[in-house]
Amino acid sequence: MSCGAFALDPRLAADTRLAASLPLCDVLLMNDARYAWLVLVPRRGGLAEIADLADHDQTTLWREVNLASRALRTVAPCDKLNLGALGNIVRQLHVHVVARREGDSAWPGPVWGHGRAQPYGEVALHERLAALRNAFEVSA
Amino acid sequence: MSCGAFALDPRLAADTRLAASLPLCDVLLMNDARYAWLVLVPRRGGLAEIADLADHDQTTLWREVNLASRALRTVAPCDKLNLGALGNIVRQLHVHVVARREGDSAWPGPVWGHGRAQPYGEVALHERLAALRNAFEVSA
Repeated sequence: MSCGAFALDPRLAADTRLAASLPLCDVLLMNDARYAWLVLVPRRGGLAEIADLADHDQTTLWREVNLASRALRTVAPCDKLNLGALGNIVRQLHVHVVARREGDSAWPGPVWGHGRAQPYGEVALHERLAALRNAFEVSA
Repeated sequence: MSCGAFALDPRLAADTRLAASLPLCDVLLMNDARYAWLVLVPRRGGLAEIADLADHDQTTLWREVNLASRALRTVAPCDKLNLGALGNIVRQLHVHVVARREGDSAWPGPVWGHGRAQPYGEVALHERLAALRNAFEVSA
């Protein structure tokens, strides 16, 4: 059940930049140049588990995860997408979509908890965000 | 697109036991007593990504993930569910649902790639499978 107003968790806010705002989710780019990595956050307050979302919101969530997956693959071709909803540290409901390449720094393990983020340079960050926004517009 | 007949990947077969057979997915119990851990495998051949599933199969997949999450929480109360679709090692499409407890052996990190599985004893394995089957019948 959703309760309370939505406010983005401050740790997610600190680690990411907004790439797109979809009907249900904010799509955030993780500021970590090691991987092309999106985080979808439904704008619903007080939720920790996907099952807490109303059925129609769940349907929208998975549609938006697909849309984000497609946009991500367009800007960052990959060998495998990784999808995850963990929330062991940040409890606010969020879904990771990560474009994995064979030989990337965590391959074949999961990216979560692996080493330290390597922030993009300013130019690379803006280029990636611009490419993602373009890909979302094309996909929408 | 689905192509080819379905056959369970031999590594998944070796690491798991069948807990339930739902309309789309086989639900497997990971034979690792460290965590209550299910793996859902859609019985469709030749798929690696969720986006490869037909739309109606995706809807069914997420419904069955919810069902499995509910059954898992019934037999193994937890602090947080973890959901993951990685496939970096086993490419056959499969979705993990893991009941996490604060302080479990990988907490708060992900379970994938963490240490070695600790197989259940025969009695504990049969008890867990029986409890899961009962929970799936109650939920269905």
